[in-house]
Amino acid sequence: MVRLIIEQTVPPHMSYSVTFFPKNSTVEVEDGVTVLEAATRAGIHINAQCGGEGKCGRCRVIVEGAVEASSTALIDESDWENGYRLACQSTVRSDLVVFVPQETQVGEHKILTSFRMTEIDQIAPLTRTRYLEMPPPTLDDNLGDLERIERSLDLLLGGMGYSLEMMRSLSSVLRDADWKVTVTIDGTPNLVSIKPGRAERNLGLAIDVGTTTVVVSLVDLKNGEVLSQASDYNKQIVCGEDVLSRIAFCEERTLERPNRLVVDTINALICKVEQDPGEGDEGLTHRDLSCASIAGNTTMIHLLLGLDPRWIRYEPYIPVSNIPATIRADELGIGMLPDSPVYIVPGRASYVGGDIIADVLASDMHKSRETSMLIDVGTNGEIVLGTGEWMVACSCSAGPAFEGGEVVHGMRAMVGAIDSIRILDDGELEYTVIGDAPPIGICGSGLIDLLAELFVNGILDKKGHIQRVSNPRVRRGEEGMEYVVAWSQETASVDDGPGAPSRDVGDILITDDDIQNIIRTKAAVYAAASVLLNSVELDFADLSSVFVAGGFGNYLNIGKAQIIGLLPDIPEDRFVFMGNGALAGARLTLLSKDRREDARAIHDRMTYFELSTTQAFFDEFSSSLFLPHTEIEKFPSVINALKKRG
Amino acid sequence: MVRLIIEQTVPPHMSYSVTFFPKNSTVEVEDGVTVLEAATRAGIHINAQCGGEGKCGRCRVIVEGAVEASSTALIDESDWENGYRLACQSTVRSDLVVFVPQETQVGEHKILTSFRMTEIDQIAPLTRTRYLEMPPPTLDDNLGDLERIERSLDLLLGGMGYSLEMMRSLSSVLRDADWKVTVTIDGTPNLVSIKPGRAERNLGLAIDVGTTTVVVSLVDLKNGEVLSQASDYNKQIVCGEDVLSRIAFCEERTLERPNRLVVDTINALICKVEQDPGEGDEGLTHRDLSCASIAGNTTMIHLLLGLDPRWIRYEPYIPVSNIPATIRADELGIGMLPDSPVYIVPGRASYVGGDIIADVLASDMHKSRETSMLIDVGTNGEIVLGTGEWMVACSCSAGPAFEGGEVVHGMRAMVGAIDSIRILDDGELEYTVIGDAPPIGICGSGLIDLLAELFVNGILDKKGHIQRVSNPRVRRGEEGMEYVVAWSQETASVDDGPGAPSRDVGDILITDDDIQNIIRTKAAVYAAASVLLNSVELDFADLSSVFVAGGFGNYLNIGKAQIIGLLPDIPEDRFVFMGNGALAGARLTLLSKDRREDARAIHDRMTYFELSTTQAFFDEFSSSLFLPHTEIEKFPSVINALKKRG
Repeated sequence: MVRLIIEQTVPPHMSYSVTFFPKNSTVEVEDGVTVLEAATRAGIHINAQCGGEGKCGRCRVIVEGAVEASSTALIDESDWENGYRLACQSTVRSDLVVFVPQETQVGEHKILTSFRMTEIDQIAPLTRTRYLEMPPPTLDDNLGDLERIERSLDLLLGGMGYSLEMMRSLSSVLRDADWKVTVTIDGTPNLVSIKPGRAERNLGLAIDVGTTTVVVSLVDLKNGEVLSQASDYNKQIVCGEDVLSRIAFCEERTLERPNRLVVDTINALICKVEQDPGEGDEGLTHRDLSCASIAGNTTMIHLLLGLDPRWIRYEPYIPVSNIPATIRADELGIGMLPDSPVYIVPGRASYVGGDIIADVLASDMHKSRETSMLIDVGTNGEIVLGTGEWMVACSCSAGPAFEGGEVVHGMRAMVGAIDSIRILDDGELEYTVIGDAPPIGICGSGLIDLLAELFVNGILDKKGHIQRVSNPRVRRGEEGMEYVVAWSQETASVDDGPGAPSRDVGDILITDDDIQNIIRTKAAVYAAASVLLNSVELDFADLSSVFVAGGFGNYLNIGKAQIIGLLPDIPEDRFVFMGNGALAGARLTLLSKDRREDARAIHDRMTYFELSTTQAFFDEFSSSLFLPHTEIEKFPSVINALKKRG
Repeated sequence: MVRLIIEQTVPPHMSYSVTFFPKNSTVEVEDGVTVLEAATRAGIHINAQCGGEGKCGRCRVIVEGAVEASSTALIDESDWENGYRLACQSTVRSDLVVFVPQETQVGEHKILTSFRMTEIDQIAPLTRTRYLEMPPPTLDDNLGDLERIERSLDLLLGGMGYSLEMMRSLSSVLRDADWKVTVTIDGTPNLVSIKPGRAERNLGLAIDVGTTTVVVSLVDLKNGEVLSQASDYNKQIVCGEDVLSRIAFCEERTLERPNRLVVDTINALICKVEQDPGEGDEGLTHRDLSCASIAGNTTMIHLLLGLDPRWIRYEPYIPVSNIPATIRADELGIGMLPDSPVYIVPGRASYVGGDIIADVLASDMHKSRETSMLIDVGTNGEIVLGTGEWMVACSCSAGPAFEGGEVVHGMRAMVGAIDSIRILDDGELEYTVIGDAPPIGICGSGLIDLLAELFVNGILDKKGHIQRVSNPRVRRGEEGMEYVVAWSQETASVDDGPGAPSRDVGDILITDDDIQNIIRTKAAVYAAASVLLNSVELDFADLSSVFVAGGFGNYLNIGKAQIIGLLPDIPEDRFVFMGNGALAGARLTLLSKDRREDARAIHDRMTYFELSTTQAFFDEFSSSLFLPHTEIEKFPSVINALKKRG
């Protein structure tokens, strides 16, 4: 009898941490557990129609880290290389980051796609379409085919650019169409497409490429109307949650993968808007899309263009370019007409990118005679201050607290997130949940409400520490004091069907440590805004408007944000919610030559203020690590609110 | 016993015609003969070092038509697809066209690469190179890498174009080179290259893409000097000898093959000039070449760009474009820096192409206050007439007689060609041979001399018929009267080594039919020039200069060309030999912005005159089918010459 001795290289009960995005939830699991099971334990609802047998292909996730998985016909080679795996057929063999794509998730997201529409006086999109009926050539009128088109367009002969690829079919297209064609050209002018007959519809894409989410709008270039919209989390998130970790990924690993993942994300969204092109239109194809405008932060634009982002990370923080040239879609790998011009909204600096200039464009603050401020809060907070004549901008590292990071029960604004909280007079607590589902965590706006309510109700002191008050929700946990927002009986109890372990989210609570992380975030934003104002010897009271842009811009309770000292204590009617300003700016630059010129003028006019080397910022940051602030007299309405509550 | 009956689909003694280029020599061979043997019978010296055993790989030829050949490691896949075969291992199975590349031939060519140098006032080449020492970025000077370069070049920030490919390595190149780099930009401006350190040498290519031959000049862009030159026959010749047959090839077969063959021809020549970059320079690489200017006829440019040439062939003769945009080298597949701009000299019409506008540029006739004429004789004859203020141009189908076609012992100007002929007073004949070799045929200039001498000496009548005079060289052949130029004992007797059949070229002679073909060619050129002059109510006497360009421009005896009525009877000192005017024009446009603007102005100013529908042309053509002309009074010096001879 032979006895096999198997050497065990992996200790039998080693455990790994697995972080799931977009929810941003981490669980510890033992070696060998499937990714599907890990997801279930993390409270993520993954589509697993076949019950985890590797047959339906619905549980596709993108994995970064070591998993054991055998190849399957359900995932093609290129996706496999990009890290796609079936969650049910992959076992955890190291710490992992897992991205769960929209189509794999059960439930809805709440990605900010709406924006404040700004008027456009004169539509002059990146491309225009003209229907031409040309006289056929004769011996007396023997212009070349291309020159004949140029003449019909009243262009200088020989002045139009083109790709050889298009030129190669030109003579057949013209003759087959009996010299009646629809041409699309950009402003260079370059020939973008030529189609037989009358096809005057001309569509473009406005795209917001965020670190976390990507939104694509299908825009009718004749009238500026948004025909349809689609959004998703940026699949690149498996390469790091914030821009710094993405850059580190490129530096230590490869630039190719994040590049391909964001292009994949955009292309999948383009397919979506094509399927749903708005009323009265049939489904579109890539051949109907002739231009795009993209707004994103500087790092996102580098990764999209495949440019080396490494020097953005190190002082003095230098990008390859802040003003990328307009690029052809097929050079980027974006699924539209190959010769489509893709305009990139210029950025001002490595940490004040094209997304912020897009915000400014959408706010119209660059046209105003009065002073206004724009605040875009994400993992980074960017602040712009100025008028139609001058502009200063800065950026601070705010931290991920408002996006679900560094907070035990924090999560992004998706279904199941508590997004508003109120403490009633009887001490009881009321909250709303996105999607009216049982709660599974708290998103940014919920956290702001929570801190404000706890502070006003005396449960937090001005340093943000939970007081040992007599309140059934206040208790001492393992890591210090904690406050329970939702009891386990209220929270989701997920049953994943026969065979799957049933599980409880448990009590949803906030800890002292969580609160310190949130306070650091709000302090950074407030300090940055203060320092920027001081630099031009102004005060918050001098602001005619404060534009609030970025991820949670639409769901924020201004009063409560003032109570915690995130926003300044000025009249509420001076705050304007921008919604997705980056997307709005992308649409404006897609549609208007004036706005593209404005974008460039904003770039030229804007002074970048480097906070990281400014002592005043650190001083102001320290003073802001209180609720609402060390100098509470800066927040008179908070004093009133506290008085009212007693 | 089983008897096998083999059906013979190919009759055992079927014979095929095999035409060899560049010599343009056709032989009839029986089915199954090797291409090497067929070449030997056609008087072509093919390199067959291994004695025809398929081992040395020296006998590579390009074959169009059916041959039987087994694949060999000596020819790679891509060459195989382009029709490369070993001559010794391929047997003839249909009518064939065979191109014998320069490296396969034994002996030298005489391709016209020299040209008249025109002064350039101010050198402003397609690309310029600048050495930059930039200040490294700081927090206070935090421009993006690309913008830093733009500032150093005094360019508008964000105004420079580039390929993403180059941009992807930009930040590393700059930092590795400690911010000291040499950049090359074109006039757009686009970034063409960026190299570490000081590398101010900037080289470009002037390229003449002819139907028959291709010439590449390596030009120093700092001073305009031609550093080296290389030339070869256009490998595309296997797809047809003249432009019409090339277009037919594209229409009936594929455009891809002629496109790849001409690109191959150019790339092989680039490798040659790189190896021989002129005095004091080491060998170059593709990365030293930053721009090119190409002159060619309209069909050649279409085939080089891969544009469909089909409509050039049919009335009203329309090209895809006469004014192609400047194209990136890698889009064309040309071996130089991928982002090099490749400028194409604009053409005026399908049969008055960029080669002719290049001729005009090189002649400076577009700057003259006096009227001059330019004559470019090849298979097509193109004529330009004008001043600095106006210009008319036309084209006629001259026929291949001067290039070795349609003449029994005609051949191109290569080693072994009789290129000048004189009949002595005693009736004997003197000739010179290119390369001082035993003669194997007669090239264009030799044929012109021959006709002139025969006519002046009374052996031809004015209709070009050989007279039954008493002369040992005049005899009746199978097809009519013929005149022997070189007796078989004078002509090459080629011994190809042991085993190869020895062979004789035999008597080199001209027939009555040959002479009629030559007369038709000269008549077309003269008639075209006459009609063009008539159209503006001028006469040959009004011309201050006649520029003679094209294949045999440098070897032509003006007096004899007047005797046969090819050139008009005006003083000899008004004729100017251009040499390779297309190449000269390509060099000028490579080096000078003014000349590129001139090229465009010539295009705009030039009126194209369509001869094919002009009755006056046919009338004039008929009158010109005589030696020298029906109206001999137009040729007073010929009358004198005839009188002198009695």
